Amino acid sequence: PPVTPAEAARRQTQYETEVARLWAAQPDGAHDIGHLRRVWANAQSIAQAEGGADIEVLLAAAFLHDAVNLPKSHPDRARAARLSADHAAAFLPGTGFPPGKIAAVAHAIAAHSFSAGLAPETPEARILQDADRLEALGAIGLARMFHVAGQMGAALFDPADPLALNRALDDRRFSLDHLEVKLFPVAEAMQTATGRAIAAERAEWMASFRTRLLSEIG
Amino acid sequence: PPVTPAEAARRQTQYETEVARLWAAQPDGAHDIGHLRRVWANAQSIAQAEGGADIEVLLAAAFLHDAVNLPKSHPDRARAARLSADHAAAFLPGTGFPPGKIAAVAHAIAAHSFSAGLAPETPEARILQDADRLEALGAIGLARMFHVAGQMGAALFDPADPLALNRALDDRRFSLDHLEVKLFPVAEAMQTATGRAIAAERAEWMASFRTRLLSEIG
Repeated sequence: PPVTPAEAARRQTQYETEVARLWAAQPDGAHDIGHLRRVWANAQSIAQAEGGADIEVLLAAAFLHDAVNLPKSHPDRARAARLSADHAAAFLPGTGFPPGKIAAVAHAIAAHSFSAGLAPETPEARILQDADRLEALGAIGLARMFHVAGQMGAALFDPADPLALNRALDDRRFSLDHLEVKLFPVAEAMQTATGRAIAAERAEWMASFRTRLLSEIG
Repeated sequence: PPVTPAEAARRQTQYETEVARLWAAQPDGAHDIGHLRRVWANAQSIAQAEGGADIEVLLAAAFLHDAVNLPKSHPDRARAARLSADHAAAFLPGTGFPPGKIAAVAHAIAAHSFSAGLAPETPEARILQDADRLEALGAIGLARMFHVAGQMGAALFDPADPLALNRALDDRRFSLDHLEVKLFPVAEAMQTATGRAIAAERAEWMASFRTRLLSEIG
């Protein structure tokens, strides 16, 4: 039977409560409940346009995909998606979630991250990856990019060579380099046609932001 | 005699060296040498358009205005401009700076800050205030706003009420609130006609950024 809106709302609350518990020790302005809700909204839009996704798998995967949230500087950071998938697989059975669908949730979570290097093999995994990547693009992506730079103590850009014309890109030192190192490539590597179209528009806006910034800083 | 370009370059290096020494213990991506050079570039543009400013006073004030840079959370933060002015007044005599102009440098520095609540009374003070405020507006202002939010652990915005329609504004919790709390008012309170025109255009762009962000986050 399809999940009713009331049941979906009940589950969302259940997942948010679990994640809030896990995150309580280390709040992170770039990964909060708002991020999860926006990823879920993106995922629903893409799923509706693309068709073929299991909505209860997508719901669980969207809200649990960052269950284990490690700082960018943490040595296990590249394994965070795998650890979040493991956490979801351990948590969901106790919630009455269909046992036969837990592996699909875990796969979508494990494959969502850039750093995991794992190809998404199901519609839900492809949609979650795109939905999460949209959060790194556009105005929201830019806000999060500079926020993370502030958390990590990176500079905004290299004043002597902001476009890295005569040096190697280094987005750990210079936040603006993150556009070339990661965000423009992400926009080129979307999994769904719907995601790709939104990403292209957001990447174009980010490029226009960079042009404006460069003109302001002379 | 007017300061030659070679002499101005020599002084700039001297001031930058002093500030780099003072800042070494606590690097801050939103206040670096790039910030000082952009403020100086802004100050020169405004001075050229407005006329009537003493360029050697402006040069010293631009490069020494953040000599004492305290974190936003520091209890003495509101006194940082006063402390920077005192530092400039103590430092400049040893550089051969004209003794009769040191008070003008100190006044410009002391009056540049929003938090100081001191009215700028000279052309150099008005120009420095505008030049520094332009750094808080436009694309550079936005990058710095979110960077500072990351440093301080603030959220990007309130997901439930991003425009604060039904709550008090609180820019220590929600970075986006900073537009209404401080940056739009700053753009309205510029001291020079040239600064006001640039600020108005930058504030309008920031408003368009906010509109875009709100549409992305639904």
